[in-house]
Amino acid sequence: MALFDLSLDKLRAYRSASTEPEDFDAFWSGTLEEARRFSLDARFEPVDTGLTTVEVFDVTFAGFGGHPVKGWLTLPAGAGEPLPLVVEFVGYGGGRGLPHEHLLWASAGRAHFVMDTRGQGSAWGGGGGTEDPVGSGPAFPGYMTRGIDAPENYYYRRVFTDAVRAVEAARSHPLTDASRTVVTGGSQGGGITIAVGGLVPDLAGVAPDVPFLCDFPRATTLTDRNPYREIGSFLKTHRGRAADVRRTLSYFDGVHFAARGTAPALFSAALEDQTCPPSTVFAAFNAWAHENKTIEVYDFNDHEGGGPYQEAAQLRWMRDRV
Amino acid sequence: MALFDLSLDKLRAYRSASTEPEDFDAFWSGTLEEARRFSLDARFEPVDTGLTTVEVFDVTFAGFGGHPVKGWLTLPAGAGEPLPLVVEFVGYGGGRGLPHEHLLWASAGRAHFVMDTRGQGSAWGGGGGTEDPVGSGPAFPGYMTRGIDAPENYYYRRVFTDAVRAVEAARSHPLTDASRTVVTGGSQGGGITIAVGGLVPDLAGVAPDVPFLCDFPRATTLTDRNPYREIGSFLKTHRGRAADVRRTLSYFDGVHFAARGTAPALFSAALEDQTCPPSTVFAAFNAWAHENKTIEVYDFNDHEGGGPYQEAAQLRWMRDRV
Amino acid sequence: MALFDLSLDKLRAYRSASTEPEDFDAFWSGTLEEARRFSLDARFEPVDTGLTTVEVFDVTFAGFGGHPVKGWLTLPAGAGEPLPLVVEFVGYGGGRGLPHEHLLWASAGRAHFVMDTRGQGSAWGGGGGTEDPVGSGPAFPGYMTRGIDAPENYYYRRVFTDAVRAVEAARSHPLTDASRTVVTGGSQGGGITIAVGGLVPDLAGVAPDVPFLCDFPRATTLTDRNPYREIGSFLKTHRGRAADVRRTLSYFDGVHFAARGTAPALFSAALEDQTCPPSTVFAAFNAWAHENKTIEVYDFNDHEGGGPYQEAAQLRWMRDRV
Amino acid sequence: MALFDLSLDKLRAYRSASTEPEDFDAFWSGTLEEARRFSLDARFEPVDTGLTTVEVFDVTFAGFGGHPVKGWLTLPAGAGEPLPLVVEFVGYGGGRGLPHEHLLWASAGRAHFVMDTRGQGSAWGGGGGTEDPVGSGPAFPGYMTRGIDAPENYYYRRVFTDAVRAVEAARSHPLTDASRTVVTGGSQGGGITIAVGGLVPDLAGVAPDVPFLCDFPRATTLTDRNPYREIGSFLKTHRGRAADVRRTLSYFDGVHFAARGTAPALFSAALEDQTCPPSTVFAAFNAWAHENKTIEVYDFNDHEGGGPYQEAAQLRWMRDRV
Amino acid sequence: MALFDLSLDKLRAYRSASTEPEDFDAFWSGTLEEARRFSLDARFEPVDTGLTTVEVFDVTFAGFGGHPVKGWLTLPAGAGEPLPLVVEFVGYGGGRGLPHEHLLWASAGRAHFVMDTRGQGSAWGGGGGTEDPVGSGPAFPGYMTRGIDAPENYYYRRVFTDAVRAVEAARSHPLTDASRTVVTGGSQGGGITIAVGGLVPDLAGVAPDVPFLCDFPRATTLTDRNPYREIGSFLKTHRGRAADVRRTLSYFDGVHFAARGTAPALFSAALEDQTCPPSTVFAAFNAWAHENKTIEVYDFNDHEGGGPYQEAAQLRWMRDRV
Amino acid sequence: MALFDLSLDKLRAYRSASTEPEDFDAFWSGTLEEARRFSLDARFEPVDTGLTTVEVFDVTFAGFGGHPVKGWLTLPAGAGEPLPLVVEFVGYGGGRGLPHEHLLWASAGRAHFVMDTRGQGSAWGGGGGTEDPVGSGPAFPGYMTRGIDAPENYYYRRVFTDAVRAVEAARSHPLTDASRTVVTGGSQGGGITIAVGGLVPDLAGVAPDVPFLCDFPRATTLTDRNPYREIGSFLKTHRGRAADVRRTLSYFDGVHFAARGTAPALFSAALEDQTCPPSTVFAAFNAWAHENKTIEVYDFNDHEGGGPYQEAAQLRWMRDRV
Repeated sequence: MALFDLSLDKLRAYRSASTEPEDFDAFWSGTLEEARRFSLDARFEPVDTGLTTVEVFDVTFAGFGGHPVKGWLTLPAGAGEPLPLVVEFVGYGGGRGLPHEHLLWASAGRAHFVMDTRGQGSAWGGGGGTEDPVGSGPAFPGYMTRGIDAPENYYYRRVFTDAVRAVEAARSHPLTDASRTVVTGGSQGGGITIAVGGLVPDLAGVAPDVPFLCDFPRATTLTDRNPYREIGSFLKTHRGRAADVRRTLSYFDGVHFAARGTAPALFSAALEDQTCPPSTVFAAFNAWAHENKTIEVYDFNDHEGGGPYQEAAQLRWMRDRV
Repeated sequence: MALFDLSLDKLRAYRSASTEPEDFDAFWSGTLEEARRFSLDARFEPVDTGLTTVEVFDVTFAGFGGHPVKGWLTLPAGAGEPLPLVVEFVGYGGGRGLPHEHLLWASAGRAHFVMDTRGQGSAWGGGGGTEDPVGSGPAFPGYMTRGIDAPENYYYRRVFTDAVRAVEAARSHPLTDASRTVVTGGSQGGGITIAVGGLVPDLAGVAPDVPFLCDFPRATTLTDRNPYREIGSFLKTHRGRAADVRRTLSYFDGVHFAARGTAPALFSAALEDQTCPPSTVFAAFNAWAHENKTIEVYDFNDHEGGGPYQEAAQLRWMRDRV
Repeated sequence: MALFDLSLDKLRAYRSASTEPEDFDAFWSGTLEEARRFSLDARFEPVDTGLTTVEVFDVTFAGFGGHPVKGWLTLPAGAGEPLPLVVEFVGYGGGRGLPHEHLLWASAGRAHFVMDTRGQGSAWGGGGGTEDPVGSGPAFPGYMTRGIDAPENYYYRRVFTDAVRAVEAARSHPLTDASRTVVTGGSQGGGITIAVGGLVPDLAGVAPDVPFLCDFPRATTLTDRNPYREIGSFLKTHRGRAADVRRTLSYFDGVHFAARGTAPALFSAALEDQTCPPSTVFAAFNAWAHENKTIEVYDFNDHEGGGPYQEAAQLRWMRDRV
Repeated sequence: MALFDLSLDKLRAYRSASTEPEDFDAFWSGTLEEARRFSLDARFEPVDTGLTTVEVFDVTFAGFGGHPVKGWLTLPAGAGEPLPLVVEFVGYGGGRGLPHEHLLWASAGRAHFVMDTRGQGSAWGGGGGTEDPVGSGPAFPGYMTRGIDAPENYYYRRVFTDAVRAVEAARSHPLTDASRTVVTGGSQGGGITIAVGGLVPDLAGVAPDVPFLCDFPRATTLTDRNPYREIGSFLKTHRGRAADVRRTLSYFDGVHFAARGTAPALFSAALEDQTCPPSTVFAAFNAWAHENKTIEVYDFNDHEGGGPYQEAAQLRWMRDRV
Repeated sequence: MALFDLSLDKLRAYRSASTEPEDFDAFWSGTLEEARRFSLDARFEPVDTGLTTVEVFDVTFAGFGGHPVKGWLTLPAGAGEPLPLVVEFVGYGGGRGLPHEHLLWASAGRAHFVMDTRGQGSAWGGGGGTEDPVGSGPAFPGYMTRGIDAPENYYYRRVFTDAVRAVEAARSHPLTDASRTVVTGGSQGGGITIAVGGLVPDLAGVAPDVPFLCDFPRATTLTDRNPYREIGSFLKTHRGRAADVRRTLSYFDGVHFAARGTAPALFSAALEDQTCPPSTVFAAFNAWAHENKTIEVYDFNDHEGGGPYQEAAQLRWMRDRV
Repeated sequence: MALFDLSLDKLRAYRSASTEPEDFDAFWSGTLEEARRFSLDARFEPVDTGLTTVEVFDVTFAGFGGHPVKGWLTLPAGAGEPLPLVVEFVGYGGGRGLPHEHLLWASAGRAHFVMDTRGQGSAWGGGGGTEDPVGSGPAFPGYMTRGIDAPENYYYRRVFTDAVRAVEAARSHPLTDASRTVVTGGSQGGGITIAVGGLVPDLAGVAPDVPFLCDFPRATTLTDRNPYREIGSFLKTHRGRAADVRRTLSYFDGVHFAARGTAPALFSAALEDQTCPPSTVFAAFNAWAHENKTIEVYDFNDHEGGGPYQEAAQLRWMRDRV
């Protein structure tokens, strides 16, 4: 069916049934504390891209476990003073790609930092270059079930930690203005955005676009599409482990990060999105704690969502903020 | 099969069996002459995009039949003297989209003009805004068989004419340097690029990426994918009209435009491309008349081709030229 | 799911939420008036088909804009006096085909006229031969979004007008009895049938079979199949234009024509029809204004509906009428 | 690939590698002799169809094993003397359907007889009504492997025998002229046509359209489509029985019936036909023994072949013959 | 949708709407009585399999109509006294296969008998070897609609009768202990298990796994997958025969056999099972008449259900019983 | 196409074009030497399975890097002296599953050891339980491209080493007779079998069934199916790295292990196998160094190959050997 999820009226009122673990905050503060024991060690090496209106730096910083994580920092050429900063996370399977794939935000006068997602970057686009040096128990192909046996081992524990450190790394550059930091990203990048929005206290805004990694209890029983479906595929083999898996995922559900959101937010959802169904997006949006929040709704779109229209909405939204 | 077309060795030697019409040149010189009877009437209206490193103009010019055709002209902000010019044509079903979808070439210090494709712009991306005010006889859904009954009526007669006029329109802006004009585009945009390369005599370069609209006799019997397949679908109903259709297409085959190419060329082909099979691309490349020509070959890619890697190759190739 | 729409009980009570435009009648009376300014100019040329029990005429008449529209008139051989008349419209993508594809109604002693659908006739069957000389703005491949920017420009304004004129043309032949005219057709032909049933006041009956073009608000959000889906595909790119599109479609919704139906009606619906979902058919049936109305329901059929069984039902139904 | 079989040049020269059994003729003469021991017992009951230009009879006759087989005999209304006769066999999965589905040949002034295919008639169209009272050993769903363990048990032994008896039944009606009998049919109906053409010595013509059941050795290894594929599916389970199966099929291969053809023939083939690949059709056509033979070739068609165009070709071809 | 059927809560309360025929018991007692007029004639021939821990016998017995039916009897090697007996029925399209495909129950110390399903055994696995010597009227390819015109003719009348006789045959071997007989099977084998559970009064247990052939009214309108879908496909052609078909099926619905179940039961269902939807399984489970019943539910499984996990559950469940 | 690879004649003569690295032997002897620095530490814990004819041990041993690897050892119950040993490796995505899934070889009087594949066991069957504690750089989902940047890092370096150690672990049990060891497996298990056959010098036989991981240069360009396709998917993103990837794979190609095979071999291939195309299997078979070798060929099978028929062939083949 074209419209397969709740009607817009019901979406606006929908609340996730995901249960928040009692030690959610302790888990995450412990995780970040552990990561910060490693020096951030952010390095910025200029890259010769052939571009003239922007300058690009190949960035390496220490993420989870002190592991080196890559990114690109792109600045308008000739910037002389600290700029508003946009930190971006990318979609599932992609990587930071090549520098000229990310021109929007620097062309709009912002400093832009895009983080590579560890282990990913081989499924589309220009690729990625960050190793995930941690192995896992038996997992279904993909990233969704790596280390799903326990919150401590789960893949996204490392990724969300990398993301918090990425904000710190980008802010450490002299030409970025930490007080005007916005985080954004689409799909998986939107899910990471929400997590960062719940973990980093002093952001100027968050802009998750058709975010993934929200409302796992509903998502995993509503859609047959990967990557949510990887979890069902894993449980198809590992019968009887649904409760354990549910527990692990509850530490990573965007719904709980949203309840800790401290910055204004611009979300987007698409009513025909079978990859990140709109109810799971609204679950996070409706839970978002900051009162200044907006959601763009695209009626006839699947997971491509608003695409360039959402970028335009973000340009307008940021113009008033950073 | 993963590799379904000729081996690379055979591709390098392949020649199309497409027959050139005797009056090919007369047909096209007549067509362009007719179009030029209408004043070009290129208008450039500045757009407020929220971008700071570039300036964008909403362009309208008179294409085939004097019909208004849209485009975006994007310049590096604050340009003070004529810049090298990149004119781009877009893929099948797409339109000029929104201005911030086209930042690459202006960020590389070029003037960039992207032409809307008449009637298209409703299948992907940010959409298009140019009407095709000409109707057609019975056609298969899509653009490939509109007016296919005769070369005079064929849809691409209008599009290729628009494209030649687009180059003229872009060159008419005071901040473009006509002597340093490169035309480029992917897929349908690549096919238009080749046509323009054969119709406009004084280009500095052409860079067709996985081009479409080449070697129709082979393309229409080799692949089951649209849009080439639209032609077969039309003939499936209109049994017995294959010869007429073949004649019409012979006036629009990239192979014959290539034989008239007067500028250095950078092509690309992907060996697993089932939309624009590599043999049809090599058919045009091998026929290209200018001796200074190169083709990037992507071994394991389907129609996405080199993507950002091909953009990088184009950046390098243009750096030495314009 | 096999049964994906409402249960039969709910179908019988279902009412569309489509809103009728205030100037619906004015729009259509103006449209028809404008078309009738052109002389109908119906011409009937005998065709040598090799058939002996029927005589066939190649018909041309002036449709919308005075554009020439084709059809076949088929009469039982040797008819000496005016016959009951069946006017038929064809399904999406098809054309009038070859004369021997339409033998049913003349074999049943009726005069039969089948109208070509302008621009269509290249996707299945024996093909079509009627040009649509009107162009359009950017549209999704197919016919559903051509001119969808405004009711005045919409493709089906031309088609419905052609259809009204087709009835007039068929009635103008000396061997047809205008007072015993039935209109019929399946799928798109059924949708046109309903429109004609609302626009032509003196019909003896209408027999739409699994009709298309009804209850757009529900159809466009219920099914993923083309051609309804073309509208969603268009809006996927042209985000933000849903309200405009909805307004245009409200002038063409079978539900509103049905409310003006003045003749007895025989509908059909198929409960597993994903192309023309049963609720959209019942929306029109339930709105049909004439009290003498019947609907054949096929439980386990998709869009093929009753096929030859519905023809048998129509034969029985017409026997008592014309 | 669009064109997946041999090129037209090679098709014209292609010869099947199917080996003819030594006792092929003995097998079939014994089979027919056995069937003729049962009285033909052809009964013709008039049907009230609501049609006026034709008269229809519900026919029952004794086929293989004396089993009752159904058909429709359709005559132009009011025929006063014996008419040329067209006997038709139907495609795989279909049945004789409803009488009004078969109007072409009677409308062209011929007597027309269509035979129901035993056990079939539940997959498309108006259905069938003939039981196949013979069971079978383990078989893959469908008809292709029923009784495939031995020629004596094979399903098509019964069907081909029914078909020969159908010709005899149709010829037994006083208004048919046996000396002007043509047999025809598409797909499976075409395969049966060829078999009848090899078994009935005094036909005036045969017109198999995209025939099935030809050149099994090639067909079963060339296409993945059912129904040929049913044989491969059977052998996928019954590993090691390929030689037995090949032997059984050799008694039913159209190639060997064609070598016994004694009447002029009009074949058709479609170059993109993946159900009945063109090489398998040409295998039979090239083997056809009568020198007066023609084949219509449809370049861009799949198994729909020429459709109404082939009917038109048959109308022309028969006009000169019967 | 991943979860497409009722929620687990509703499943536990669900009751089928299938109507039990008044003469259900008479029909089946008459059927079995008729079958028992033929001598059971069970023969056990030792097979040399190369296995050492088990002994295998090739079994033939007289099923419905006295027709020979095959099976394998597998015993732990060197068994000296009567063993608990597990009789197994196989899934749709499969056969008894090769002896070494069935090692589980003999390895667990039981006598194991697997019955071949007549006419089946050509679609997967090691194949089958039992003929179904009964023909049928027009049917859709497969077994679901053979003889569906009347309960007396229906294919599963023969199969269920074979199954009852299979239990009798297995029990007739001196090394089986009739008083400790359990019947089991998955999918179609589960459906047969339920039927046997309702027809054989003195079983020690039944263990249907994701059973098929239950709650036809819901199953045929809920899923698009074969084999349930074969019924809808048949009715798609044979329009208007739904009531007859429903009547025939009511004699074979697991729901009614379940209401006669006299032994403890271990069922399984999978919540994402689109072949045998969980509601249809719960329909039978909820109707099961013996109070000692359990159902294993697999949350994220499609028709593969519990697979080896369900076997483990069965091993535990039987350990306490036989 | 049903048959898509070389004909059987050509398969028998086919030789792979894969180039053997000069240091192939050094690489592998170094790798094994390194692994053997860790104590094998094979532990055998009895499992209560409910089975009576066999005894099962839960095995853990130190594989590559000393990492714990799991397996099941299954012996005929009551074995008193060392038994011939069958070591089995499993297919892609599977794990060792549950003990009762592996009854064949112990039921045939052999000791049977099945090795878990590290990190796998979540895609089908009863699952796996062995962690792969090594991370990787960016990889395409699945196992084929983990660590593909260098032979030292490649995933299968660890797996093949585990497999050699598995043979050592199984042989270390007092009830196995090391001198009568056969290794076997299907698909990935067949690929591992061939590797072990080239690395372990004193085997009594190898029996790879439709083996994977052979003739990478051909496999990666011939089939679109995973898992071979994972390599192409990786290169689709990582354009320009094909040579590096090819080099890494050359250290793992079954063709080169086959050239070192020192034991008699029983292979199988299926002519319609699109997962492990027959030419890639014959590439290894034709290269197999021991003269005593046989290949079973299944004409109409896809990757299911001979299934139970191949097991029967293996039972016969082993009976004469171990």
